[in-house]
Amino acid sequence: MVKEYYSYKELLEDTKRLIASLDGKYDAILAVARGGITFAHLLSEGLKIRDINVVKIASYDDTVQRNAVTISDLPLLNDQKRYLVVEDIVDSGKSMQALSLDLAKHYPHLNYDVAALFYKPTALYKPKYHLHEAKAWIEFFWEADI
Amino acid sequence: MVKEYYSYKELLEDTKRLIASLDGKYDAILAVARGGITFAHLLSEGLKIRDINVVKIASYDDTVQRNAVTISDLPLLNDQKRYLVVEDIVDSGKSMQALSLDLAKHYPHLNYDVAALFYKPTALYKPKYHLHEAKAWIEFFWEADI
Repeated sequence: MVKEYYSYKELLEDTKRLIASLDGKYDAILAVARGGITFAHLLSEGLKIRDINVVKIASYDDTVQRNAVTISDLPLLNDQKRYLVVEDIVDSGKSMQALSLDLAKHYPHLNYDVAALFYKPTALYKPKYHLHEAKAWIEFFWEADI
Repeated sequence: MVKEYYSYKELLEDTKRLIASLDGKYDAILAVARGGITFAHLLSEGLKIRDINVVKIASYDDTVQRNAVTISDLPLLNDQKRYLVVEDIVDSGKSMQALSLDLAKHYPHLNYDVAALFYKPTALYKPKYHLHEAKAWIEFFWEADI
């Protein structure tokens, strides 16, 4: 598969572009760990949002199910706030689908939208905002540089 | 006051240097929001630590006390794990002192060390690891670029 390096410079440009295109004001950020964390931090600075939270989602292969998803430690969220959920890539969409079900269960009235840097049109879940269509294997700088 | 820009390239070098100097193995990361978040993400990738948590600490000036500190939403931590607490700068040290008191109260047996990119020798709290002494006002790229 073709690999494509995604640099800090690109993240910075994408974050500015997203901020300029947001539909209204958000009060808080929910970053999907680990991939969404650096993007979420830059967004929170650009939007001057202090309320930044993290949810850990892990995909794994086991003998029963390929690409099973577990969500651990959903943080305490606030129904009165509008959240921007921040992810690096929505690929199969399984992680985001699992998160949306978990949020619906624990916070049925939560007001949130999802923003992803990359989105694959075949995904099970479509984020409200995405910056690019994923046409290759993305090597994010926070993984590739270290 | 002299201002000094701190770039992504410097963060990358510092993160590699910290990883090479760590005293043993850590199981989890606790990032201090917002400043410690991008550093914590890069560290978690370099150390292959999936368990990354965030605590929100805000300093504010009010009429009663200058530089008061509030800690909100201490996440659920695990006494059986060894944590690396990750911060951008320990300046007055009030934030880290408040966090250490809060951790002692809620998790008296928690095993953790603190790592900061910058440390001022006059601070009330000395982190176990620091990469630089703060001799100027640091403009971190995640604040200055966006």
